[in-house]
Amino acid sequence: MKSLSNTLLERLQLIQPLSEAHRQQALQRLDQLTKPPGSLGKLEALAVQLSGITGSIKPDVSKKAVIVMAADHGVCEEGISAFPQEVTAQMVMNFLEGGAAVNVLARQAGADVFCADIGVKQEMDLSPRYVKKVKYGTENMVQGPAMSEEEAAEAILQGIQLVEKLSKQGYRLFSVGEMGIGNTTASAAMISVFTGFSPAEVVGRGTGIDDAMLGKKQQIVQKAIDINAPDPENPLDVLSKVGGLEIAGMTGVILGAAMHRHPVLLDGFISTAAALVAAKLSPLSTAYMIPSHLSQEKGHLHALNALGLQPMLQLDMRLGEGTGAVLCFNLVEAAMKIMNEMATFESAGVSNS
Amino acid sequence: MKSLSNTLLERLQLIQPLSEAHRQQALQRLDQLTKPPGSLGKLEALAVQLSGITGSIKPDVSKKAVIVMAADHGVCEEGISAFPQEVTAQMVMNFLEGGAAVNVLARQAGADVFCADIGVKQEMDLSPRYVKKVKYGTENMVQGPAMSEEEAAEAILQGIQLVEKLSKQGYRLFSVGEMGIGNTTASAAMISVFTGFSPAEVVGRGTGIDDAMLGKKQQIVQKAIDINAPDPENPLDVLSKVGGLEIAGMTGVILGAAMHRHPVLLDGFISTAAALVAAKLSPLSTAYMIPSHLSQEKGHLHALNALGLQPMLQLDMRLGEGTGAVLCFNLVEAAMKIMNEMATFESAGVSNS
Repeated sequence: MKSLSNTLLERLQLIQPLSEAHRQQALQRLDQLTKPPGSLGKLEALAVQLSGITGSIKPDVSKKAVIVMAADHGVCEEGISAFPQEVTAQMVMNFLEGGAAVNVLARQAGADVFCADIGVKQEMDLSPRYVKKVKYGTENMVQGPAMSEEEAAEAILQGIQLVEKLSKQGYRLFSVGEMGIGNTTASAAMISVFTGFSPAEVVGRGTGIDDAMLGKKQQIVQKAIDINAPDPENPLDVLSKVGGLEIAGMTGVILGAAMHRHPVLLDGFISTAAALVAAKLSPLSTAYMIPSHLSQEKGHLHALNALGLQPMLQLDMRLGEGTGAVLCFNLVEAAMKIMNEMATFESAGVSNS
Repeated sequence: MKSLSNTLLERLQLIQPLSEAHRQQALQRLDQLTKPPGSLGKLEALAVQLSGITGSIKPDVSKKAVIVMAADHGVCEEGISAFPQEVTAQMVMNFLEGGAAVNVLARQAGADVFCADIGVKQEMDLSPRYVKKVKYGTENMVQGPAMSEEEAAEAILQGIQLVEKLSKQGYRLFSVGEMGIGNTTASAAMISVFTGFSPAEVVGRGTGIDDAMLGKKQQIVQKAIDINAPDPENPLDVLSKVGGLEIAGMTGVILGAAMHRHPVLLDGFISTAAALVAAKLSPLSTAYMIPSHLSQEKGHLHALNALGLQPMLQLDMRLGEGTGAVLCFNLVEAAMKIMNEMATFESAGVSNS
């Protein structure tokens, strides 16, 4: 029987480069519009990227999904978060009831929220479940691997399959979000391993810890890396040893979007840890990623730089859930509207030099 | 008879500080919501500011106006722009027909565009006119003042009166935009005088000039400052000598919004020149300003710093028209929705520490 990791590696072959023909069509169109060439900056780059991703200069990206992956972290035993572990499950209920920040922002954007329990520690009676619960929270990574490589691969596949299901339902624009007390600790460990920056350079305050806890959190991250010795060139090794189940699920969402030629918005710090795994598993997948905001979480910029992505929003946010990504749905739609609704120099009778 | 400048100075007394009581109410409310305190960064600051501006923690800012002030610049004779002067009038027609970038983005945001000819060089048959045409373009500022102080004051008053009219029609959120070939040259001169940065530090490429024209543009700005010797402590002196009619109109829009306790979004480089005049005329008015994007135009950051404002969007845009401001309507509305639609720790049963 094939291992899950092998099944995953086979699926990755489905990811193709963007359509260069549609990128060029978009570039030509943009230069005919009544504005100085390139003057809309990243909005124009986004219009070109969306055309290349979807194979159309008029893609319909109106059906939007925010996938919030939720899971728990064994490393919480070490006391690295300002909030107790049960908040993960409590917040899942809050997502389902529509009261969290990501729900409010998704309603504003006309997007649907799918909260998936991929690894919450306690039993949760959810319907529909969206994904299989791969594990009841990770193990404490300072004592050994957070999970097995098979579990990490399974969580990625769950993310891919959820995107597949939503794609069949007509969703065309995705964003990744998460809930998991302790997950900035896991993300910092992963980003430290992938980028080579030290824990001191990538560990931040998460939900709001003080200086003493920050020092402890840095030590915990260093200890987890020392004990597990993850191989930076093996993304599944890093993800399983010092990662998290929701992070793996997010990696799956990103890869699933790329497989189906749908754009996917990243969120903040944790989503870039997931994106680094996706980029290592399939370098072609980065072309499908759209950066959103620059988080206040230290280390986010290092991770974005490693992905070659520049954020669009700078709001000093550090909430997670997908909130930064959801705020950028509006910019993605703006980019498409610019390309398809603006007058040309010719149609408007405006002098072009 | 009182001079227009004196009439203007009297009107400025109407501007009041924000309501501290409502700022505090907003802060208290935000800390009860299911998120780590302060984790929504500038969105939270925006919710507090809007509450202080409007005197309500649930203001209705759904009726939104983008005011696009259009005017011409005598300094165009010197050959400082990539586009010919007639583009100002051509673009006014484009705004009226709904084909410009700001129209597209305003439609997306559910905002109405009001394009006002406050000083276009040629006769324009517009209906309604929204403002009086104060002058048929400015004089060439390298030969003397761009306009008289009375004309500058008149253009400001026209902006104030337009906001008054729209406020009576129910508009509650404003943004400033402009069209005027040559206006990055005037804005650079104003910002150089107000901030003390040299022309080399604040002159940018505008709609897209090459290195040779950039050097010439810097010299023109220096020459205009040398010949006119505007007094940095006298905002009307700076505005009339090296400014522009649309810039004065934008100053009026900002001041008018502050007088009527409405929030006003700034746009890019040119709007910050107008905002510096407003801030010098009435320091209290800055509390009503909301920064939007960081323009690619060199010098914008210096102007924002002088105003004590930090941009929210970083899209490398340099189009003007109000496009950056209009993209931020969505963020203003997001801030209010966060405050009014999120669950509290208590209502959602989420542990608060």
